[in-house]
Amino acid sequence: MPRSTRRRPALTHPATEDIDLFDVLHALSDPTRMTIVSVLRAEAERPCGTFPVDVAPSTLSHHFKVLRESGLIIQREEANRRISALRTVDLEHRFPGLLDSVLAAYVRGVEERAVTA
Amino acid sequence: MPRSTRRRPALTHPATEDIDLFDVLHALSDPTRMTIVSVLRAEAERPCGTFPVDVAPSTLSHHFKVLRESGLIIQREEANRRISALRTVDLEHRFPGLLDSVLAAYVRGVEERAVTA
Repeated sequence: MPRSTRRRPALTHPATEDIDLFDVLHALSDPTRMTIVSVLRAEAERPCGTFPVDVAPSTLSHHFKVLRESGLIIQREEANRRISALRTVDLEHRFPGLLDSVLAAYVRGVEERAVTA
Repeated sequence: MPRSTRRRPALTHPATEDIDLFDVLHALSDPTRMTIVSVLRAEAERPCGTFPVDVAPSTLSHHFKVLRESGLIIQREEANRRISALRTVDLEHRFPGLLDSVLAAYVRGVEERAVTA
């Protein structure tokens, strides 16, 4: 059995039509997960360990699982890396305008904190 | 001491500038709380016990607390009733367009379920 098959369970993702609004809102209600989403909004895709977040690997792994199972991101294995991408098209199809307005509110908050810091 | 003062603690609400995006998203990530918000979107205000939700009174009380502390609703006492209203202007000032896009996504989901039911 190849080592990669033994080490990692298959990654599951909800179908576009099964993406649930409450799961998405819950996934976005955490600062670490929102940071990941906002980084992926600006980039096509990115390996899991390279996000500008300061949490333990097991915590980060949990956050990626929440994001993947909510339908916000898609992940694939590539060699020893797990690559993440935002499901922008699926999300826009399912909830038009939602992600943009949430991210705009987030960016606005980040800018406010920068001004008052 | 009047009975009403003894029975109920003062209701606290965050200032508009202290409304936190993650608290708002968390508050909206629950179907019962979303139902309350969507009803209040259509009405000026409403007494707590009159919402079309099927949960125990203690659970409902918790949901109203989460909504109030997140800044989504304002509550006031009137005789023996607690009246709730959506903080539409405050929310629009804080996160322009956010509530509309979340509620639009919610209504869309409700309509989809009605079609497939």
